[in-house]
Amino acid sequence: MKIICNQRILSSSINTVQKAVSSKTTLPILKGILLETCGQQLKLVGTDLEIGIENYIDAEIISKGAIVLSARILGDIIRKLPDEDVEIEVDMNNNATIRCANSEFTLIGQPAVEFPELPTVEESDAYKLPQDLLKNMIKQTIFATAVDETRPILTGVLMELQEESINMVALDGYRLALRQANIKNALNNKAVIPAKTLNEINRILEEENTDVEIFFTDKHVLFNMNKTRVISRLLEGEFINYEQIIPKEYKSRVKVNTKSLLGSMERASLLAKEGKNNLVKFSVRDELMTITSNAEIGKVFESVSIELEGEDVDIGFNSKYFLDALKIIDSDEVYLEFTTSVSPCIVKPTDHSNYTYLILPVRLVG
Amino acid sequence: MKIICNQRILSSSINTVQKAVSSKTTLPILKGILLETCGQQLKLVGTDLEIGIENYIDAEIISKGAIVLSARILGDIIRKLPDEDVEIEVDMNNNATIRCANSEFTLIGQPAVEFPELPTVEESDAYKLPQDLLKNMIKQTIFATAVDETRPILTGVLMELQEESINMVALDGYRLALRQANIKNALNNKAVIPAKTLNEINRILEEENTDVEIFFTDKHVLFNMNKTRVISRLLEGEFINYEQIIPKEYKSRVKVNTKSLLGSMERASLLAKEGKNNLVKFSVRDELMTITSNAEIGKVFESVSIELEGEDVDIGFNSKYFLDALKIIDSDEVYLEFTTSVSPCIVKPTDHSNYTYLILPVRLVG
Repeated sequence: MKIICNQRILSSSINTVQKAVSSKTTLPILKGILLETCGQQLKLVGTDLEIGIENYIDAEIISKGAIVLSARILGDIIRKLPDEDVEIEVDMNNNATIRCANSEFTLIGQPAVEFPELPTVEESDAYKLPQDLLKNMIKQTIFATAVDETRPILTGVLMELQEESINMVALDGYRLALRQANIKNALNNKAVIPAKTLNEINRILEEENTDVEIFFTDKHVLFNMNKTRVISRLLEGEFINYEQIIPKEYKSRVKVNTKSLLGSMERASLLAKEGKNNLVKFSVRDELMTITSNAEIGKVFESVSIELEGEDVDIGFNSKYFLDALKIIDSDEVYLEFTTSVSPCIVKPTDHSNYTYLILPVRLVG
Repeated sequence: MKIICNQRILSSSINTVQKAVSSKTTLPILKGILLETCGQQLKLVGTDLEIGIENYIDAEIISKGAIVLSARILGDIIRKLPDEDVEIEVDMNNNATIRCANSEFTLIGQPAVEFPELPTVEESDAYKLPQDLLKNMIKQTIFATAVDETRPILTGVLMELQEESINMVALDGYRLALRQANIKNALNNKAVIPAKTLNEINRILEEENTDVEIFFTDKHVLFNMNKTRVISRLLEGEFINYEQIIPKEYKSRVKVNTKSLLGSMERASLLAKEGKNNLVKFSVRDELMTITSNAEIGKVFESVSIELEGEDVDIGFNSKYFLDALKIIDSDEVYLEFTTSVSPCIVKPTDHSNYTYLILPVRLVG
């Protein structure tokens, strides 16, 4: 194999596929990146067997071939080369010589045949949606996935594809995030995608409205973004029937400026985090909501202007769960919907109905 | 005590004095910042008993007084407040109430009398030099101080004040950095300042040519930078007679572009750091210097254009010690001066004689 390509493009490609490479793997070949000529392009692949990332770059293919090189060392070397042509030549013994300007590296590689093949996902029946929309949907749900592995299905985000809409849902037993979008597609499907996969997808997605294509098999999902393809296993098992958790009615509804509430919550949480449970208390009265928290070292009293519809409310929350949602809601104002002091609170934007966030309260003592 | 001041100014002041506060201290009062009215100003003080930082800000002093508040919590709170007036009111029981816009915090403080007084340094016989010059001198020497504490005196930088010049010197047994500057001052002195102190000074110094005033006692040094004063203990003991270490002659002198050499060294060190000692080898011949390094995973060959005066050279170095110096030398070109393959190499800018860097070679086997 012998190829020539641009340093900057190669470095960026390594950077993309390196995300799937785990440094902790016990299988040495998985610490490497597969470089393989593919027509007039060079294909780079990284995988940890859970997720695989492929990226294609333009290159001058002088002779065909393939090799696996250490992701870390190759990445470091290419990143430090000047922005000029890079030549990579591989001999019969899997030694790769990398030449660029006044530099020449020789790296001992591994044979490409030992690199695991990524699962095959047939590219028919694409589900298409704009990259920036998917990016936003991931951002607004992924933080609500469970971190601990006691219920593995909750470490992923449920993706529900319907003919007229797409739903993404995450929940961890304390809160739930539901993002909906209206997309027409002739595909009905339902799958739970690991948060780790969506995290990597999110980094690759561009802030633009060109489509990403999604393909499913029973066990895998493939995201195709122009030059980059991400293949991941799906989480197995039945997702919780989330719809029945979300209350349909409320007794009190508060309308509040998102940034004001976020600022007050951030300050209140400075003391809340000194105590147990990050506990903050809301007192909702007429035109004012007060947010208070107590710790050994002191206390805080915040007041926020609101519009209240319904009854007064006294309720407690783990401030972290509120902050997570307020940080990713783009709308200027939100509704907070309450029923009783021990039933869930719903947070939603006032200007559209595409986002619903549910938080369980903390029971107040005394 | 009751004062009103601007949020942004107060936050920046806390940020400055907080640098002297250690979170690891066993003395609870040292986790605090002293706030004390001082004429029409508010004085903030942080100290870990080794170093103390005082900062003065303009404030409306409604009533005099002083208090000690947790540096971490106070810093977090003030940083999160809006950019408006902040009122701090302290009652007889050392409870501080902080009010700003719609926020009210109450923090339990500690009595100011329990806060340790900083050592007194009489402000006569100032040694003056421009802030940006001192900043540059610190940057070009501090990295060569010893990290391990086996010879405590080497964890500091020697400052030699003479009537016509100032020298700063650091060494750790493997390399030495000497920065000189021509400054006229009617003061002769010599002191070893802890690297930690100079690190903090460096953060406070501005990139401008207004003077910083330096005052010494036998045991302490005071840096006065307009609104901020830093007081530190000095390191005790005799510094090494560094002048006799620096060779006065050489057999070979190489002239080389600083950036080219830095680039090649950075790439070579990617493989050097995989092996022992970060070893890189230089081969100096006529118009070309080659830099090579070997590791289990591969090898690297870099070539750099040079002008050689004198004999060919083959010599090995720990690449880290070269990189440290090349990163902070501002000049476009440097001289490398060699005598034998086991004697020190001198690195110096070609366009002035204010900087001298010495590196011991690594003995090459075979």
